[in-house]
Amino acid sequence: MRQSQLFTKTRKDSPKDEVSKNADLLIRAGYIHKEIAGVYSFLPLGLKVLKKIEQIIRVEMNKIGGQEIEMTALQSKEIWEKTGRWDDAAIDIWFKTKLKNNTELGLGFTHEEPLTNIMRDYLRSFRDFPVYVYQFQTKFRNETRAKSGIMRGREFLMKDLYSFSRDQKEHEKFYEISKEAYMNIFDKVGIRDITYLTFASGGSFSKYSHEFQTISKSGEDTIFVDENNKIAINKEVLNDEVLNDLNIVRSTLTEHRAVEVGNIFSLGTRFSEALELFFTDEDGTKKPVVMGSYGLGPSRLMGVIAEVLSDDKGLVWPESVAPFDIHLISLGQKAEEEAVKLYDKLVKSGKEVLYDDRDMRPGEKFADSDLIGIPTRIVISDKTIEEGVFEVKNRKTGEVSKMSENDLLKMIIK
Amino acid sequence: MRQSQLFTKTRKDSPKDEVSKNADLLIRAGYIHKEIAGVYSFLPLGLKVLKKIEQIIRVEMNKIGGQEIEMTALQSKEIWEKTGRWDDAAIDIWFKTKLKNNTELGLGFTHEEPLTNIMRDYLRSFRDFPVYVYQFQTKFRNETRAKSGIMRGREFLMKDLYSFSRDQKEHEKFYEISKEAYMNIFDKVGIRDITYLTFASGGSFSKYSHEFQTISKSGEDTIFVDENNKIAINKEVLNDEVLNDLNIVRSTLTEHRAVEVGNIFSLGTRFSEALELFFTDEDGTKKPVVMGSYGLGPSRLMGVIAEVLSDDKGLVWPESVAPFDIHLISLGQKAEEEAVKLYDKLVKSGKEVLYDDRDMRPGEKFADSDLIGIPTRIVISDKTIEEGVFEVKNRKTGEVSKMSENDLLKMIIK
Repeated sequence: MRQSQLFTKTRKDSPKDEVSKNADLLIRAGYIHKEIAGVYSFLPLGLKVLKKIEQIIRVEMNKIGGQEIEMTALQSKEIWEKTGRWDDAAIDIWFKTKLKNNTELGLGFTHEEPLTNIMRDYLRSFRDFPVYVYQFQTKFRNETRAKSGIMRGREFLMKDLYSFSRDQKEHEKFYEISKEAYMNIFDKVGIRDITYLTFASGGSFSKYSHEFQTISKSGEDTIFVDENNKIAINKEVLNDEVLNDLNIVRSTLTEHRAVEVGNIFSLGTRFSEALELFFTDEDGTKKPVVMGSYGLGPSRLMGVIAEVLSDDKGLVWPESVAPFDIHLISLGQKAEEEAVKLYDKLVKSGKEVLYDDRDMRPGEKFADSDLIGIPTRIVISDKTIEEGVFEVKNRKTGEVSKMSENDLLKMIIK
Repeated sequence: MRQSQLFTKTRKDSPKDEVSKNADLLIRAGYIHKEIAGVYSFLPLGLKVLKKIEQIIRVEMNKIGGQEIEMTALQSKEIWEKTGRWDDAAIDIWFKTKLKNNTELGLGFTHEEPLTNIMRDYLRSFRDFPVYVYQFQTKFRNETRAKSGIMRGREFLMKDLYSFSRDQKEHEKFYEISKEAYMNIFDKVGIRDITYLTFASGGSFSKYSHEFQTISKSGEDTIFVDENNKIAINKEVLNDEVLNDLNIVRSTLTEHRAVEVGNIFSLGTRFSEALELFFTDEDGTKKPVVMGSYGLGPSRLMGVIAEVLSDDKGLVWPESVAPFDIHLISLGQKAEEEAVKLYDKLVKSGKEVLYDDRDMRPGEKFADSDLIGIPTRIVISDKTIEEGVFEVKNRKTGEVSKMSENDLLKMIIK
């Protein structure tokens, strides 16, 4: 895409009302627009990143047998009353609204209830198990404060998967598989080495739940990392019993601020019993379905990546989620012709290229490029043409090299 | 995908609370689930169809220069007050909700206001034009009645594009281009021959707006079709002046019930003036931006396709939007082995195949297949194996033929 066509522009000044680094950078680079605190629109560059993260997650969810659906934001009171989660006293983050006839509706902050209800139509026999269902869907949470940019929104995209199993054993098997899938996702988006499977508080049906926490100074959580075992314990549950359970010595732990990028939770039969999701088992008895929920927010993940991988010049996207693979910059009219040729070759080879064809000073173009954070920058100028090379810069390492077209294409197209 | 793995099942009985054909069929075939009247979840088969329609629309919007974004459902009062569209007396389909601090918020039923507001950050000079921005986003409309299934929802997916032009002439050029893009979309989803560009009421800035109306007995609108010119006039605006404008004789018109599947609208400077979206033109003067809006609901389109292309046995999807290309059915254990072989070949060749590997009676499998409506059905049974052929049925025409594997693969893979 030609940058002159892209309707967004970068801005030098930080927005006045943002305290979070991710929102500050993403707004300045033209990725997102703030509508209300905690409510952000995704502009072309931002939507591209979000969709790439979504697709990485989708691939992993499909691999472990997930079936994709899309449920609704509008929620009817009846099913949530059955689980005791309708009352604002029980759930203090509901957004509620009304039909014309005054029927109260809620805006879904999660979807255990409606999916359990849907499953009553389909899960009847032990032969129907196991089933894993997920969606990418917009959640609404009426947070009192919303100061973390897209890391904690009032309206945000969520991947929520729910598992339906015959018994605890079948459930636990998938629960372990899901951990691997999550770590694959963090690997692919470039934050695996700073993301830890973290033991957190469970519920009536399991001693622990598990969070995936990414180390970040701006994180809202405190975790204690055991680097040898590559796991962590949320401060909220850290005590001698937990250390004993995990066979960990307190002195090996290091304290960090961290952001929760995902969580997985054994729900037992809490929802299936309340909503009467029963099945007939092999022995003819009626049993409640054993459930689990598995959350991961693509927009939050995007915020975390922006927050932890950026530098003082701007965003630094890993190749897997960058809005474009290459930022091609031409300086001067003579360079334009060469740039268009290279642009065509790169696009033809399947690369996504943002071509800065704007009539601006080099310094401005470079500053924009650093702020936008595309992994590879290629500069074509009178000087490079004269030398018969292209100037290639790696956004992450800052490394600059001069390459012939042959070497460049070899490196990029692979 | 193996049908035994698909968590949805068909049902024989119509849901009691549905009067619309599309919802009846889509629910019975396991494509959607009704949450509340006018509020439907999309199950695996349904989401596949919806995503294919979305992608067809996306390709056409990108072709005409659209840049994709995603705005938010939650809307702040301030910007809507500026255009006079906040008050429930002016707009009677708002869903409204509140932040904890009692700040009122709306749930977007359209997005002229927030996008005009976003554009204030980016459109400043005549050099910035034209710009076309679109999104696929969930709209909320508090309809009093919602009895048309997914053809008219209270919560539904919408593609809304907005154009921003320097002047009326630039606007009109794109407005005409958009008509072609819309007809391309209707062509690709298989309803072009029953869909008409329809003259409807305009606003302060243009005499007419244009709807795209698809002929359907269940439609809420009445249109008068001029078959020679392939256009129609909405009953609401039919008078001598319109006939004169269009150079049409009343006697050539035929009356039909129809569903509005899309609409395009010249907005003039109504929104840009109210929200102060001005730019500096070439001559140095400050001018309001000329806007247009272009709506098309993927979920409504899916409902219309379900409604008008189905038959008494069930759904009939065009290849372009079908959840799978092929419904492969094996009858009996011996056939299973052959079916798996063929399944692997078809999948390897890039086809999407639903393989009915369930242990059920042939009649049930065939009825399910007709209800689900995948374009091509292939049956493998003891008998076909003996004959060394496959039985291939075209869901739309009902035509059945027996083919050797070679001929079958030639026909399908092309």
